[in-house]
Amino acid sequence: MELNFSEIQEGLLAADRVTLARAITLIESTRDDHRELADRLIESILPHTGKSKRIGITGVPGVGKSTFIEAFGKLLVKNGHRVAVLAIDPSSSRSKGSILGDKTRMNELSLMPEVFIRPTPSGGALGGIAARTKETLLLCEAAGFDTILIETVGVGQSETEVYQLVDFFLLLMLSGAGDELQGIKRGIMEMADLIAITKADGENTEKAKLAAREYMNAMHLFPAHPGQWAPTATTCSAIEEKGLKEIYDLLNSYFDKTEKNGYFLHKRKEQDTWWFHETIKRELSYRFYRDDHIKAQLAISEKAVREGKSHPISEAMRLIKDWGD
Amino acid sequence: MELNFSEIQEGLLAADRVTLARAITLIESTRDDHRELADRLIESILPHTGKSKRIGITGVPGVGKSTFIEAFGKLLVKNGHRVAVLAIDPSSSRSKGSILGDKTRMNELSLMPEVFIRPTPSGGALGGIAARTKETLLLCEAAGFDTILIETVGVGQSETEVYQLVDFFLLLMLSGAGDELQGIKRGIMEMADLIAITKADGENTEKAKLAAREYMNAMHLFPAHPGQWAPTATTCSAIEEKGLKEIYDLLNSYFDKTEKNGYFLHKRKEQDTWWFHETIKRELSYRFYRDDHIKAQLAISEKAVREGKSHPISEAMRLIKDWGD
Repeated sequence: MELNFSEIQEGLLAADRVTLARAITLIESTRDDHRELADRLIESILPHTGKSKRIGITGVPGVGKSTFIEAFGKLLVKNGHRVAVLAIDPSSSRSKGSILGDKTRMNELSLMPEVFIRPTPSGGALGGIAARTKETLLLCEAAGFDTILIETVGVGQSETEVYQLVDFFLLLMLSGAGDELQGIKRGIMEMADLIAITKADGENTEKAKLAAREYMNAMHLFPAHPGQWAPTATTCSAIEEKGLKEIYDLLNSYFDKTEKNGYFLHKRKEQDTWWFHETIKRELSYRFYRDDHIKAQLAISEKAVREGKSHPISEAMRLIKDWGD
Repeated sequence: MELNFSEIQEGLLAADRVTLARAITLIESTRDDHRELADRLIESILPHTGKSKRIGITGVPGVGKSTFIEAFGKLLVKNGHRVAVLAIDPSSSRSKGSILGDKTRMNELSLMPEVFIRPTPSGGALGGIAARTKETLLLCEAAGFDTILIETVGVGQSETEVYQLVDFFLLLMLSGAGDELQGIKRGIMEMADLIAITKADGENTEKAKLAAREYMNAMHLFPAHPGQWAPTATTCSAIEEKGLKEIYDLLNSYFDKTEKNGYFLHKRKEQDTWWFHETIKRELSYRFYRDDHIKAQLAISEKAVREGKSHPISEAMRLIKDWGD
């Protein structure tokens, strides 16, 4: 990959999607020279970031996240938005491959010039899922995307990280999947600014409405929303394109309200503080592993650990002490 | 909490569950003096660790993990085992509370003297979920528990971390929850050494068997298991106590086979290498934040970030440079 700094910068600010894709590949790289270029790039585009609406979308596998995003994304484009979709992809641990086959399901959306879709692999690299996704998000903002949808899979750790990245958290749920309130953990439900019951079409319509009412009742028992917003539950159908406009309107009300009462800004500041600490952690590791003395010692330490001659904790402590001295 | 080092050490090795609980509270503490004591404790008990079978159990909410563990745990005890159950609990992000109400569902199991049950909160502390759970696991081993069940919720990031802690990965799944193979991501399925379809009782028995066959077929398409084990799918019913003995036998075959062919040891060595690097990351952060100069600077930096006077990345870099010099 040949990378010219000012070319990337210009391409980004000119909203060129090919350049955006290359810039993201750059920040995902673990090569030393790429890493330095990436840091410089992020700093240089910062004045052009921060203006998008950042929306997290989650739900268990099978809830229809891709189908929802396909339909909702088209509605956003119709309303004049430029939309970036970032999908956090828990990479296959054993085969190391990406399992994001479903991204190809956003057929029409992915062809629109106002849309950029990108999976961000969660596996292995420096700094964790969220720090890298944060940088990707900033690049998208610099490239003029005003609505960023961040999709996560499932009900695990990644949601609480994504919560650090987004202004609004949308939880998609199915109706009638067993006990209505057992389907997803309360911690995830409490993070939601809106719950949407998907697949509310045909025979399923009434069941979905009932589920929405049940969730709404349950949500009253949650701690008060810090932004004086009242999280609610609604229904939608991606196939029949129903309920999507309502979700769009709710989003707009949310942003109106929280921008006025200061919560929007407050939350972004909290996130900046979190990001500051994430950067510290990432950079500490990075500096340690880049150190020439450590590089030379590391193979020896790993060998000692593997052969059981040294214990992981003791060996790590020894190496760090070595570095500090 | 008054802590006497040799008392804890002795209590642990005497298999005292109260001491074990206190020792775990110690390693979960973020207080400086506790942290140092915790490190010393872990190092001191290491010679008494490593001998248990470490088993990860996962599945989406509603699959019946607690019910399964209640029934399977009793079977293990009946077969002469001492069982520790560690439940990784994605803490509620907004209310900061633990949501592990369902742990109280393991009614009979939790009363058995051969059993120790403990949720390990995943939220916020130094070192991530897995590093802390690893230490908890070691404490349980030192206290003489020979079978450790590590339960995780859902289909997210935590599973790939737990994979770094366990010898065997059991995935629980429901039959008839929509498209059989869409219910859970392929990456998680590939990690499984065994899939068990739960709730295979009454009218559901045949459907569960069919689902097991379908999963078995799907598993043939996965990359070959590195331990020359053939992952399979089976059915079980916690209520009717069916299929549990079969799972126990499969576990024993797995351990027989992989201990003989060296994969068991190989995997533990890989995990030690991973743990070595995790300890490095944790310790780097720890040393940084404990530094007196950094402590003094941190509040100023955070304020600058919050007020938008300084950018998170630049501020983090500045502080780290400060520390290094």
